[in-house]
Amino acid sequence: MKKVLFATTALIATAGMAAAEVSMSGYGRFGLDYNSANERVVGRSKTNITSRLRLQFDMTAETDAGVAFNARYRAQAESRDGVAGTGAFNGARFGVSYNGVTVNVGNIIGAVENAPGLYATGTRSAGTGIDGMGFHQIAIKTNGGTVFNWDAYSSAGAGSNGIEVLYSAGGFTGHVSYSQRNGGTVAGSAGGEDRTGVMATYSFGDYYVTAAMQSSSVPLNDITFAAAGGNFGAFGAKLAYGSTDQVDSFTLEGNMDIGAASNVLVWVNSADAPGSVSTVKGDGGVDGTSFGINYQYDLGGGATVVAGYVDEADDDNQFQAGVYFSF
Amino acid sequence: MKKVLFATTALIATAGMAAAEVSMSGYGRFGLDYNSANERVVGRSKTNITSRLRLQFDMTAETDAGVAFNARYRAQAESRDGVAGTGAFNGARFGVSYNGVTVNVGNIIGAVENAPGLYATGTRSAGTGIDGMGFHQIAIKTNGGTVFNWDAYSSAGAGSNGIEVLYSAGGFTGHVSYSQRNGGTVAGSAGGEDRTGVMATYSFGDYYVTAAMQSSSVPLNDITFAAAGGNFGAFGAKLAYGSTDQVDSFTLEGNMDIGAASNVLVWVNSADAPGSVSTVKGDGGVDGTSFGINYQYDLGGGATVVAGYVDEADDDNQFQAGVYFSF
Amino acid sequence: MKKVLFATTALIATAGMAAAEVSMSGYGRFGLDYNSANERVVGRSKTNITSRLRLQFDMTAETDAGVAFNARYRAQAESRDGVAGTGAFNGARFGVSYNGVTVNVGNIIGAVENAPGLYATGTRSAGTGIDGMGFHQIAIKTNGGTVFNWDAYSSAGAGSNGIEVLYSAGGFTGHVSYSQRNGGTVAGSAGGEDRTGVMATYSFGDYYVTAAMQSSSVPLNDITFAAAGGNFGAFGAKLAYGSTDQVDSFTLEGNMDIGAASNVLVWVNSADAPGSVSTVKGDGGVDGTSFGINYQYDLGGGATVVAGYVDEADDDNQFQAGVYFSF
Repeated sequence: MKKVLFATTALIATAGMAAAEVSMSGYGRFGLDYNSANERVVGRSKTNITSRLRLQFDMTAETDAGVAFNARYRAQAESRDGVAGTGAFNGARFGVSYNGVTVNVGNIIGAVENAPGLYATGTRSAGTGIDGMGFHQIAIKTNGGTVFNWDAYSSAGAGSNGIEVLYSAGGFTGHVSYSQRNGGTVAGSAGGEDRTGVMATYSFGDYYVTAAMQSSSVPLNDITFAAAGGNFGAFGAKLAYGSTDQVDSFTLEGNMDIGAASNVLVWVNSADAPGSVSTVKGDGGVDGTSFGINYQYDLGGGATVVAGYVDEADDDNQFQAGVYFSF
Repeated sequence: MKKVLFATTALIATAGMAAAEVSMSGYGRFGLDYNSANERVVGRSKTNITSRLRLQFDMTAETDAGVAFNARYRAQAESRDGVAGTGAFNGARFGVSYNGVTVNVGNIIGAVENAPGLYATGTRSAGTGIDGMGFHQIAIKTNGGTVFNWDAYSSAGAGSNGIEVLYSAGGFTGHVSYSQRNGGTVAGSAGGEDRTGVMATYSFGDYYVTAAMQSSSVPLNDITFAAAGGNFGAFGAKLAYGSTDQVDSFTLEGNMDIGAASNVLVWVNSADAPGSVSTVKGDGGVDGTSFGINYQYDLGGGATVVAGYVDEADDDNQFQAGVYFSF
Repeated sequence: MKKVLFATTALIATAGMAAAEVSMSGYGRFGLDYNSANERVVGRSKTNITSRLRLQFDMTAETDAGVAFNARYRAQAESRDGVAGTGAFNGARFGVSYNGVTVNVGNIIGAVENAPGLYATGTRSAGTGIDGMGFHQIAIKTNGGTVFNWDAYSSAGAGSNGIEVLYSAGGFTGHVSYSQRNGGTVAGSAGGEDRTGVMATYSFGDYYVTAAMQSSSVPLNDITFAAAGGNFGAFGAKLAYGSTDQVDSFTLEGNMDIGAASNVLVWVNSADAPGSVSTVKGDGGVDGTSFGINYQYDLGGGATVVAGYVDEADDDNQFQAGVYFSF
């Protein structure tokens, strides 16, 4: 799987002291989205523009002793299902790093969210197609599907307002995150749902294994996740397992480079969801098999052509094609 | 007419591949606005501050084969009629260009909006005075005045969520745009108003001719527009014609450089609007003659002094004076 | 008191004319906030995260004759008392400067706000601790406490939409500001509250004296303020006096550098507020004595460790500790 990394730095203060700077980066993506689910929405076309512009500001400062501070701030505008939106800044994440240990507060990454193997490997959307197409390949599901019931960096909202610690050494990364909803307090004794996430991953050569879990005061949001994957020359493969109180599911994923610039990724998810069996096409049932395919062609210069197809467990299907460009 | 162009580029990634970058630009403007219409608004002074700060982000990326991607994103804050506002990002426009052909999606320019001769020639506001003063010089009118009933890039909202194609070769530019409101779908079979715009312009030496039209599913928004103009040494002149179901109007405009840094522009609009005859001062009637004058003095460094006066068809009048600076 | 100044410049246009540019700067701060007042809020922890990310855009342009234009625009995201927010741009301030005279319009600084000695001397929060902790050290109070009833630059809102003139020559700075609320008109004859502020300050060597006042159409917002302060080697001291219709108060402040990187600041405020005598802990009474202490340690590179403690006149107390980093 090819990687395209862009980091464009706006500002460097070089006044004889450690550097403090703001960098801007992001991506634009746009394309066509066919979604059979839209045939059941009055007045909505089945084919729409899907687009997003993401503009990200990363701030850094480093003390004389080498302690690194950072913050991340984003604004993005999207169009989906025929409705275009405007942009606003999200909540900020603040971080401090030293000797492989990072502590973040605010709009944290989240331990489960950070697990390698959770999202599709190396696709521009981190899912299928232009906008992820509902991220049906993620193995963590409830009867409502993949509902992102774990702490994760929010691009459009304030986020979890939590605290997390990450540690990396050699091939090992450990990650513990904590947040409390409806108040997001540190002490944890008051207010709404609290979530504790733990993730550990080890990579050796071209392979990795990962385990993650989330313990929540809301039982439905207790999560277990495990994944293993690797690259074998031009081929890559991944097996992921996710479990909640309602659904156990496996995702098998494979990808292959074709020539110098193309990559095809195929995934199949099998979900055991006794409480969410589909009886009518498009009823949102999760039980059964879903699959998808993602094709990417690297145009160089940060631009990529992307096409994707997804067949959902309830027989709805989607197709998307368009372009990404990084800046 | 003098032009002041500023393009300030924040970021250039030079990692042995084609460039991807973010550039910031914009302008600040502020001054005093006298508007006789405000005498009919309880609690509002006739003279107010008018101001705007526009901060624009332009993102670009170019593939190895020379295909150029871009996106445009804006945030601006305004004060008008004594009410100051805050800022937010608008909807994004995404574009791809190759060999003179450009395709944009999202917050598109719009074919009619892009017609040379639609706005005042070379004034900092694209109209009269600091903030355009209602843009009474635009020849496209309905009984409500100039109501901007064509697709155009929105600086404060999500925009048209449309698609457009532009083609330029030699002195020729052609432009076709399409959008659908209340859903903005591509297929065009569902939802609200859809608009198709076409514009063609040809420039030869210092002269140009333009024709543009918009066909809408809402009859009032069917538009015909034509213009011709040119420069004759220190003098410039333009004749524009606009027609809707309700109003036919002509605008005649002339401008003259005075010395090295000044320019004066004068325009007269004659509107035939049988359904909008003014009977009382300030009733918003469109039928008849309006005129305006705009004076600019280039201070250098991107700064300009601007003053304007407008006499409307219903005998309301406005005066503005202030400054612009680009960055 | 040590100063850490960071100015990071994004963009410089050098096309043979005077410079126009956009610079980005700001700070991130985060830490823990203990506030005894939160024990009276159901479902809120007494200890919470307090954080802010400020991203500031400063635009400048300079005419050929040396007249400088500028604008300031901010977006920031905060978390306080367990509630995290997102960000948006504020209202803009526009300025023009020449030969020591500056005229600003829009989201103005405000004459009283600009008085040296109003805020805590040299602390990162301009108050105590990470987020100012309610700014109880400010000598201008009403029966409701320090309610910021003077014109000041608003980081999150549209601001005063006023006009101000500043003049500096030698050690002297004079500042006159004017705004009108609920309409913010220039003429001043219509609409809501209008405020006129005047400030004069003179610095000689390491010492300064300041006087400021605000005259408002709302009697409660008439303000008198005076301060004097200075540095004596590693020591600094300040005495400030503030008066409104309801409260007269004095603030005495001292600070001391400790070693090469630390500074401790202590303040005591004595308020004579006959209409706001505290009878029960935490009832918000202003009459009496409040005090606070702020400790800072400069980590270099724009980063600072900050801790603060405040004891309020009504016996509520607060403690905060965390970090700041500038960029």
